[in-house]
Amino acid sequence: MLPTQPAELRRIIRAGEFAGVTSGLANGHVQANLAVLPRDLAFDFLLFCQRNPQPCPLLEVIEPGFVEPTFTAPGADISTDVPAYRIYENGEMVAELESVAEVWRDDLVSFLLGCSFSFEAALADCGIPLRHQEARSNVPMYITNIPTRPAGMFSGPMVVSMRPIPQAQIVRAVQVTSRFPDTHGAPIHIGDPDAIGIRDINAPEFGEAVEIRPGETPVFWACGVTPQAVALNCKPPLMITHAPGKMFITDRRDSDYAVI
Amino acid sequence: MLPTQPAELRRIIRAGEFAGVTSGLANGHVQANLAVLPRDLAFDFLLFCQRNPQPCPLLEVIEPGFVEPTFTAPGADISTDVPAYRIYENGEMVAELESVAEVWRDDLVSFLLGCSFSFEAALADCGIPLRHQEARSNVPMYITNIPTRPAGMFSGPMVVSMRPIPQAQIVRAVQVTSRFPDTHGAPIHIGDPDAIGIRDINAPEFGEAVEIRPGETPVFWACGVTPQAVALNCKPPLMITHAPGKMFITDRRDSDYAVI
Repeated sequence: MLPTQPAELRRIIRAGEFAGVTSGLANGHVQANLAVLPRDLAFDFLLFCQRNPQPCPLLEVIEPGFVEPTFTAPGADISTDVPAYRIYENGEMVAELESVAEVWRDDLVSFLLGCSFSFEAALADCGIPLRHQEARSNVPMYITNIPTRPAGMFSGPMVVSMRPIPQAQIVRAVQVTSRFPDTHGAPIHIGDPDAIGIRDINAPEFGEAVEIRPGETPVFWACGVTPQAVALNCKPPLMITHAPGKMFITDRRDSDYAVI
Repeated sequence: MLPTQPAELRRIIRAGEFAGVTSGLANGHVQANLAVLPRDLAFDFLLFCQRNPQPCPLLEVIEPGFVEPTFTAPGADISTDVPAYRIYENGEMVAELESVAEVWRDDLVSFLLGCSFSFEAALADCGIPLRHQEARSNVPMYITNIPTRPAGMFSGPMVVSMRPIPQAQIVRAVQVTSRFPDTHGAPIHIGDPDAIGIRDINAPEFGEAVEIRPGETPVFWACGVTPQAVALNCKPPLMITHAPGKMFITDRRDSDYAVI
């Protein structure tokens, strides 16, 4: 039985006693995507996130070389407290590790970005069903024809996630996710996959397809895979990310990020 | 009679035909605070804004040397389209100019930040009176004891603006400004100046004091003077800002920035 408090969970992860997916853990606390880049790319990546807040909602940026997210998780260590990390060199994955303390460098800047777990909890609280959770699969994600606003070397299309929503609940789904702009916010698109460049709704680029039942409409949200996809596309000499579904658990509550 | 369209207004400003305060111009369009810094301070200042979104809501960052805000005002020139600029060297004002095209440098990064004009329009639309506008004076602003979250060389206390709000309208004032996190958003504090380090409500550090009538409560919002005060406090070798009340007029509508 895992503890429910973020600090306790991170302690267990740091000790190497848990390396699984974090979905459903520390309920009510914000989980974060991780992207780590060398300092000489950090200004452009920070600017990229500022210009694309829906796919890249910044929760915290840790300054070069430091590993403590003093704002979202004081006392934590970003180089050890994520269940699993992926190391990329020139855009190619070269390792998956449970700690990056050994490979840490003084010039590394860590970016923590909001993730969809927060707004999915808000949708579930409103009684809006989440098909991929019912199916125990990863949410389907698609590369769109929606361009991001480039910054320096960083550019590329937006990635979105899709959830089928019963038509009577679409307004509520828009309202409730609009409250959380720091965890992707309101939908990017409602209804027509083709309008945003998605050719085959049954063939997502990431995750797994889900059934869209009669009376349901596909609703699309900006996805936190976007900044990773864009960054890797640019083949930085070094990039470290969390492994899919294995997020950094912060001390902050989802409700801390509601704008109203 | 001045035109009401942003592009026309900017053309007149660029031509040197208008150098006044922009309050009330281009109604319904977002106006922006300007801060320009050399590239070697830009990452830290961008990080400072990311860490302090209430006083420093970033609307756009223009990359080193460029002068066109392609997102908020395509075709504009940030070095000529503000009615008046102030030049600071090592924290001291050395000039006020109507154009900075002559002193522009390839390493200058421009930051456009949201301003209170947007949420004041939203308050007025709800029938909430704005005392400083009635008095035709500048809103009172105070240095608080609320620390900002530092980044690199940038640190210092938050500056807030104050508006007396009739008690029956405070809830509405919170709701309506919460819709606009990119133009300072919800209040920072309601009611007790002393609780945020304001000794004398009749002696603001910037702007002019206004009357607080019986049945009204002072309500405080994060103020866009904060990033300028913080930056100047750190005495950067060069900083360019707009002159007080003489803002950059963007093409974007206030409603574009409503989160719901």
